[in-house]
Amino acid sequence: MTYEAWVATEAGSPFTKQSLSREPLGPEEVEIAVEHCGVCHSDLSMWENEWGMSSYPAVLGHEAIGRVTALGPQAKGLTVGQRVGVGWTSDSCMHCRQCMSGEHHLCNEAQPTIAGHYGGFANSMRAHWAWTIPLPEGLNFADAGPLLCGGITVFNPIAAYATPQSRVGVVGIGGLGHLAIKFAAAYGCEVTAFTSSQDKFDEAREFGAHHVVSSRDSDAIMELEKTLDLLIIAVNVSLDWDAYIASLAPNGRMHVVGAVLEPIPVSIFSLITRQGSIGASPTGSPVGITEMMDFAARHDIAPKTEHFPMSKINEAFQHVADGKARYRVVLDADFE
Amino acid sequence: MTYEAWVATEAGSPFTKQSLSREPLGPEEVEIAVEHCGVCHSDLSMWENEWGMSSYPAVLGHEAIGRVTALGPQAKGLTVGQRVGVGWTSDSCMHCRQCMSGEHHLCNEAQPTIAGHYGGFANSMRAHWAWTIPLPEGLNFADAGPLLCGGITVFNPIAAYATPQSRVGVVGIGGLGHLAIKFAAAYGCEVTAFTSSQDKFDEAREFGAHHVVSSRDSDAIMELEKTLDLLIIAVNVSLDWDAYIASLAPNGRMHVVGAVLEPIPVSIFSLITRQGSIGASPTGSPVGITEMMDFAARHDIAPKTEHFPMSKINEAFQHVADGKARYRVVLDADFE
Repeated sequence: MTYEAWVATEAGSPFTKQSLSREPLGPEEVEIAVEHCGVCHSDLSMWENEWGMSSYPAVLGHEAIGRVTALGPQAKGLTVGQRVGVGWTSDSCMHCRQCMSGEHHLCNEAQPTIAGHYGGFANSMRAHWAWTIPLPEGLNFADAGPLLCGGITVFNPIAAYATPQSRVGVVGIGGLGHLAIKFAAAYGCEVTAFTSSQDKFDEAREFGAHHVVSSRDSDAIMELEKTLDLLIIAVNVSLDWDAYIASLAPNGRMHVVGAVLEPIPVSIFSLITRQGSIGASPTGSPVGITEMMDFAARHDIAPKTEHFPMSKINEAFQHVADGKARYRVVLDADFE
Repeated sequence: MTYEAWVATEAGSPFTKQSLSREPLGPEEVEIAVEHCGVCHSDLSMWENEWGMSSYPAVLGHEAIGRVTALGPQAKGLTVGQRVGVGWTSDSCMHCRQCMSGEHHLCNEAQPTIAGHYGGFANSMRAHWAWTIPLPEGLNFADAGPLLCGGITVFNPIAAYATPQSRVGVVGIGGLGHLAIKFAAAYGCEVTAFTSSQDKFDEAREFGAHHVVSSRDSDAIMELEKTLDLLIIAVNVSLDWDAYIASLAPNGRMHVVGAVLEPIPVSIFSLITRQGSIGASPTGSPVGITEMMDFAARHDIAPKTEHFPMSKINEAFQHVADGKARYRVVLDADFE
């Protein structure tokens, strides 16, 4: 019943490899031998207890890919040896209105994989069977981890609010944003990327953006007035919100997926005149994740990744914290 | 070519009756003999140039009911003598993407009836034929005026975002809010009214509210956490926005139809966790107004009104400004 994991004993402390013990596998649980696990910016936020919801010791990692090694007796739809992924959520109550409507990610008792639960920076992890998502054929599994959190987070609003005729903006070209560009371009949309990094302009075009605009250039944003049907905010910093709202077309929607801590001041007049909306969402449901991965496999969409052995987790976190990730870091399990 | 109107010569000045002259009727215009015209709170805002978009001399009134007296040669679908209504918008370009999609109210060149155009506090007014809406059989025309602006403003989000299973909140039980309660109740929704006036609690229930809550009691609002699918904000003052956003159910929407001048500070975390939205909208399209009036006629929905002769327009405005209207003031034309 013991396994190995990279553990932070308190907020921001370096990860050390430890042997951990755990209870017998629950009846609906799945045990997974982790092969790869992405480093999401929210791993950093949770590591440092930025949101006040962390618990320690912490085993982070919520973009995990691996193989099923054991199944509880009531675990459904999976087989031992199958390759699967686990994202931000690892359990939900399964019987509330949200779960029973296929919106398990909105369950009040949804269990985050890395808060009060141990995640994927380990050689073994567990999740409820419903949140253990089989990988489709044809998906590059070594790079699939970031789809489980970053990917579904940006795919969810595209699937909900975009059509192939939509003009879609993506603000922030990082782990989430570069996937948003790829998904929106494959969806058939006209894509405008916004980034503060001049050195990302060319790559944003390679990801599929038709236009690239400086995210800090209010005049350039204002030139887009009333043109964008869906504007995905994939940063967690404050922006010139008035300018971005002004860029929304009639019936346009600004959709925030970055954990913006400061309240966004919304001018109601500006929303009224264009019949606009501002929304936000977390990741997505199990079926949403499955459909996103099917779409990614069909369209050959993968995150652009940098791989570190998991034993270099501290260097990897520093790399992400320094804003140097291009565009998502994945840790490859290298336990003995 | 002359007609009589109640004119404000500068911001907030008393209305005086004047004879005005005008150009010949345009080819797509309709001329209407005004019988009744509601007083909307935005007439007060425009009278005092609160939004910086007024022009003077001003003839206000944008909830007008009357009979067609003349039709331009290209005016379509109307006959002289027919009873019609004109609301917030009196013209639009008719050829932009919004107009050609049936969303004329989002046309960039939509002409407000009372800004740069003369409204319904007169014995005659004009509007484009598309914005001159025939009244359905069975509608009490003397009280129908407030439907043309207040009614469509609240019906629009109900038709777009509610179903008969929805739990709908309405904040502010005034001209708009009392119609929102009536529409939502007739729509089959479970309706919660929020008002700061204890003396409106009973009437809110008579309008169809199943529950009434003090709009200033944050604790009572917090007890509704995660219960409301659609929350219509029909006031223009600042509220405990965090509490109201917390009342939204998963996938819930707070929809603002009041001209709230202060930016609303939106906590993104709160929106993310419930996959919530904040939206706003102006009035509605010509077809939207027609469908709203059909619905009102079928369900016997009318605003609760107080009638003044139009010659008492100054007293009527004071009555509305004092917050005494229960719930909408209508002026009855009494020109000689």
